[in-house]
Amino acid sequence: MVHAIRLAVAGIGNNISALLQGIYFYRDLLSRRIESGELPGIKHAYIGGISVGDITLVSAFDVDSFKIGKDLGEAIFQTPNNYPRLGIEIPKQDAKVSPGLRLGEDNMVIGKEGVVEELKQSRADILLYSLPTGMQWAADAYSQCCLDAGVGFVNCTPEIVARNPEILSAFETAGLSLIGDDLASHLGTSIVHQSLLRLLSERGLTLLSSYQLNIGGNEDFKNLLQNGAGKLKSKKNALAQNEAELDLIEVVPSAGYIRHLRDNKVAILNIEAVGWGGTPVSLDLKLKVQDSSNAAGVIIDLIRIAGVAQRNGSGGFHPAASRLLKSPPFGHADDEVLTVENAIMSLDARAMSG
Amino acid sequence: MVHAIRLAVAGIGNNISALLQGIYFYRDLLSRRIESGELPGIKHAYIGGISVGDITLVSAFDVDSFKIGKDLGEAIFQTPNNYPRLGIEIPKQDAKVSPGLRLGEDNMVIGKEGVVEELKQSRADILLYSLPTGMQWAADAYSQCCLDAGVGFVNCTPEIVARNPEILSAFETAGLSLIGDDLASHLGTSIVHQSLLRLLSERGLTLLSSYQLNIGGNEDFKNLLQNGAGKLKSKKNALAQNEAELDLIEVVPSAGYIRHLRDNKVAILNIEAVGWGGTPVSLDLKLKVQDSSNAAGVIIDLIRIAGVAQRNGSGGFHPAASRLLKSPPFGHADDEVLTVENAIMSLDARAMSG
Amino acid sequence: MVHAIRLAVAGIGNNISALLQGIYFYRDLLSRRIESGELPGIKHAYIGGISVGDITLVSAFDVDSFKIGKDLGEAIFQTPNNYPRLGIEIPKQDAKVSPGLRLGEDNMVIGKEGVVEELKQSRADILLYSLPTGMQWAADAYSQCCLDAGVGFVNCTPEIVARNPEILSAFETAGLSLIGDDLASHLGTSIVHQSLLRLLSERGLTLLSSYQLNIGGNEDFKNLLQNGAGKLKSKKNALAQNEAELDLIEVVPSAGYIRHLRDNKVAILNIEAVGWGGTPVSLDLKLKVQDSSNAAGVIIDLIRIAGVAQRNGSGGFHPAASRLLKSPPFGHADDEVLTVENAIMSLDARAMSG
Amino acid sequence: MVHAIRLAVAGIGNNISALLQGIYFYRDLLSRRIESGELPGIKHAYIGGISVGDITLVSAFDVDSFKIGKDLGEAIFQTPNNYPRLGIEIPKQDAKVSPGLRLGEDNMVIGKEGVVEELKQSRADILLYSLPTGMQWAADAYSQCCLDAGVGFVNCTPEIVARNPEILSAFETAGLSLIGDDLASHLGTSIVHQSLLRLLSERGLTLLSSYQLNIGGNEDFKNLLQNGAGKLKSKKNALAQNEAELDLIEVVPSAGYIRHLRDNKVAILNIEAVGWGGTPVSLDLKLKVQDSSNAAGVIIDLIRIAGVAQRNGSGGFHPAASRLLKSPPFGHADDEVLTVENAIMSLDARAMSG
Repeated sequence: MVHAIRLAVAGIGNNISALLQGIYFYRDLLSRRIESGELPGIKHAYIGGISVGDITLVSAFDVDSFKIGKDLGEAIFQTPNNYPRLGIEIPKQDAKVSPGLRLGEDNMVIGKEGVVEELKQSRADILLYSLPTGMQWAADAYSQCCLDAGVGFVNCTPEIVARNPEILSAFETAGLSLIGDDLASHLGTSIVHQSLLRLLSERGLTLLSSYQLNIGGNEDFKNLLQNGAGKLKSKKNALAQNEAELDLIEVVPSAGYIRHLRDNKVAILNIEAVGWGGTPVSLDLKLKVQDSSNAAGVIIDLIRIAGVAQRNGSGGFHPAASRLLKSPPFGHADDEVLTVENAIMSLDARAMSG
Repeated sequence: MVHAIRLAVAGIGNNISALLQGIYFYRDLLSRRIESGELPGIKHAYIGGISVGDITLVSAFDVDSFKIGKDLGEAIFQTPNNYPRLGIEIPKQDAKVSPGLRLGEDNMVIGKEGVVEELKQSRADILLYSLPTGMQWAADAYSQCCLDAGVGFVNCTPEIVARNPEILSAFETAGLSLIGDDLASHLGTSIVHQSLLRLLSERGLTLLSSYQLNIGGNEDFKNLLQNGAGKLKSKKNALAQNEAELDLIEVVPSAGYIRHLRDNKVAILNIEAVGWGGTPVSLDLKLKVQDSSNAAGVIIDLIRIAGVAQRNGSGGFHPAASRLLKSPPFGHADDEVLTVENAIMSLDARAMSG
Repeated sequence: MVHAIRLAVAGIGNNISALLQGIYFYRDLLSRRIESGELPGIKHAYIGGISVGDITLVSAFDVDSFKIGKDLGEAIFQTPNNYPRLGIEIPKQDAKVSPGLRLGEDNMVIGKEGVVEELKQSRADILLYSLPTGMQWAADAYSQCCLDAGVGFVNCTPEIVARNPEILSAFETAGLSLIGDDLASHLGTSIVHQSLLRLLSERGLTLLSSYQLNIGGNEDFKNLLQNGAGKLKSKKNALAQNEAELDLIEVVPSAGYIRHLRDNKVAILNIEAVGWGGTPVSLDLKLKVQDSSNAAGVIIDLIRIAGVAQRNGSGGFHPAASRLLKSPPFGHADDEVLTVENAIMSLDARAMSG
Repeated sequence: MVHAIRLAVAGIGNNISALLQGIYFYRDLLSRRIESGELPGIKHAYIGGISVGDITLVSAFDVDSFKIGKDLGEAIFQTPNNYPRLGIEIPKQDAKVSPGLRLGEDNMVIGKEGVVEELKQSRADILLYSLPTGMQWAADAYSQCCLDAGVGFVNCTPEIVARNPEILSAFETAGLSLIGDDLASHLGTSIVHQSLLRLLSERGLTLLSSYQLNIGGNEDFKNLLQNGAGKLKSKKNALAQNEAELDLIEVVPSAGYIRHLRDNKVAILNIEAVGWGGTPVSLDLKLKVQDSSNAAGVIIDLIRIAGVAQRNGSGGFHPAASRLLKSPPFGHADDEVLTVENAIMSLDARAMSG
């Protein structure tokens, strides 16, 4: 029998709501003998023998006083969380939300002993770090707690953790997984925009201009309105097919916080180009996705890669996670896609022979 | 000095207007020392040493009495042609439009001697076959005229010519190029639709439904309103990522003849899918292109591949053309893209060393 | 206490499914003391004292052998009907589907006695005529049955009934309502298109071109693919702000039968114009509606106008219905909108004082 | 013979470029005997006998050192102005750009004598005030200069001038026109959005949510990114059909400064509603306009109304301008549209009889 991965989570936002509800959604389908190849929205029903339902949430950390002390199955629905209810009943979880790490007046981190203790007592395998973007101190401190408690670490945010060679080396030595940094989206605006720009370039059309607007109604879009500049630059770099194109592409990570969109994200793309004889080609696209589903659909793979690799005895980063991250520790190689599928298959093979 | 390719054309529609005007458009840019890497809408400025401007139209065939006898530089603007004027002056050409092949009362083809004679006198290297879709007899007869006159053949239409092993063998034996069948678009609806559906599938999203509507204002869209069924089937096959998806995709090759769009083509795509937890993903796209530029941007490469390969002494089909055709004689292989670029590079290399 | 209107229906398609399900949907809301001003999608919660829930379906006619004999509450879900289930339980109705009128071999109408008998026995007040478009003989015969049985008539289709002066006069004499012809949509493509074109004209912009495409997945869109020509002409007339614009506007009533859209209708509009200095203005719009809800939202008012006017003792056409029809017997006057609201208010007032 | 209106302009931005180029564009058409009813983008070819070409720019004010001293026909093309060239040659104007009003260190306005002197010397009839939004001091000072110089005033901006009863009374007494405040757009996002929301409401559909995003590449969109809040509130008020809807509508006046759009403005609208039975209706719209043409198309009428009314001897505000302004001094009345057309006709009539 498979032992489920015991997961701790830090930051109980929409991503965790999506993750927990989704786990029950797929458990329900699997219990009704839906074949794993037919699970909607799932590419890898199993990784290393672990199904999408084989995750148990065993502890949780947050600093919101309305969430602390609540059962996790209840806390995920607490405002300002606004991921939709998937119509599946979420039972009481083993886990209550514990107080998360805080910064004291002297910029000292408060609460590390409690977090380490809770991680040990709950016998968590992996901690998923999913706090709002921009708190490097918290990413550092939670990863240190994991090292102290003997727990692997998955970093959803752009904070530098797996790319920090010292931290990476510490996890390797300890035989603990360290997977990060920064989640790629399941189907994000960038990958769609990139695919179309690449297609034009391959075909020999000449880009004149392109813009990308993103709007949504969750907390991320509020934050990005102020802090979008950093995200902007990395997005433009990912899109331009060559240096000349950088000036032709405009990206607005948060063009508006539209409250009633809730956790939906809408992206508007425009591409203007010319083809044969300088005649015009124009392309307009609207993409609407459930923002936190876009995260959870990738988190589910990262957790399993981290958990399975750690069980296999290998610590540090695992290449199977590379394509699922925006900033993996060793960058992206061109022939990576095949390698990643191979790496996932090797996890599978090992599990079967194990 | 490079000898330009001497081109004969059969069927003086928008494609030929786009081709001839474009040749002068690029000659003008090249004469103003625009670097070849900066020619708008061009991927291969040179193939085998032949630039996009190194094509001379030396003879032309049509059955429209308003076109016959006119200079080709004038005939391309004759109604119902409605490709836009590119703002470049088209001088008088060497070539007048000659009477094309016709079907007589007893289904005998009329006019073959005249066509062969004209091909010989004009010293054409290659004939571009670009008649309206659906006249297999004409494709057969023109290709036979080419064999008789010692001229290579490029087939823009879905009629079966290069896929006919007997005809292919005859061109091979004669050392004449035979490139076909059926032009891929420079940037067509199908490739955009396909790219997006493939992206979804790669990411593990589950397709619910998709449709594609095409409208335009040229003669093709009038014809397709009646005869779209055949085109429909092949398009759906190209789009579906697996058998199950075939039922989920609807394609309307001509959803309307919209007169004032003239030679513009508008495609409307919709994709509905689900991701993590069964939550919805939807994508709407509008693509607007100059329809005949989409053809001419590919024709320019096919002509040069045919011409260069023939000069190099190799007859029959050349693999460099494979990706530029919907139905090449040996189908499409998965690793073909690299091979095609290699094949084009080998044409280039040979030209340089020659 | 209000006596509900007793309704007979001819043609058990999506419109009747939408109507019957909607009646139960609103009854449920009203029973939960939702205020009438807050009923979603409803403008007139009451007309002449009759609420949207005060309609009882008492008899039904169809020629589909899979529908005949079934209880109406079941027959509305019979294929090819594909209006969605609204999530409200539809109980067994009093009414079974009876055999409708047919054309015999000699073009004689078969089944009139049965229909008249059923109308009398069921004590229907009004018959709603909702057969597929194009069967003038059926519209004639059903209206005659109504005269024979003493039942009012509402014509949803473009067949000429209320515009036939002889028939209209017969209903007037008999003190029976005759409301028709041809349903306006609750929110149709035409009214949206028209509003935008009128706005441009009022502002002094100059129209260059406009197109309108409609697609859907119900039986109407299959039929219209073949028979759209008539509908096309009347649509273009309604849109053009002046004679000159007629040539600039293209309408495709059915640009495609897209099976998986089911009873949804999608309209694609484009408008190109110029403003100050001849600079361009362009507008693209996509409208998605539930096609048969668009009909039922208007039918609900027509039935009540017919029923209330008839109870008040006035036969023939009632002006309160004018704006809800595409072809009312006396056309559309410019100041009609106010009059219609007045007419509806007078029905209300009379009901209150009655 | 008609005496052209002698116009002074304050603030030489895109609006003035659009205005001046447009005047020559229409003069050219009129000189080629295009009938006035066929002038593209023009509703009132004549107001009070003054054609769209009968405006002469006689003096100009700006604080940009790159514009001061240049001929107005050259200054309108000075960066950051980026309205397109209309392809009509703009000859040297009588007017050089003079230094505009400035704020000194002690918040005293500098340069009033020079402005008054220049207004007098140039014998301007009307000053068009078209500075960037947000400088109430400048609007006050320029209007005072006009009173001193005996010149009428048209205020394009939201600053309070015509709505200031003291200023209005001073212009009335002086027999000078005062037209303002805040230009309505020729075809703006608000009027399109409003028309669609009103249509839904009239039809009895129930609004669920709506958003409006605006992007562009001129200086306005840079400014609005910071200062959009005020504009936002008034826009939402204009859109909501009732108080309840206020919360359902989100407007982003500048969702992004997209450099390569230059003076184009793109608006993205979405409307989600429900109809019969609570079934969904959704509407997506993209509107693309030349931003400053939208202003100039209204300015041309305001100038003529101001000029003609002043010639007729009436000072202060003229009701013919009411609909062309967002905040006229006496607000908007419901029956205003007809009145405005009557007012314009009365200006015409008086001109003919004069």
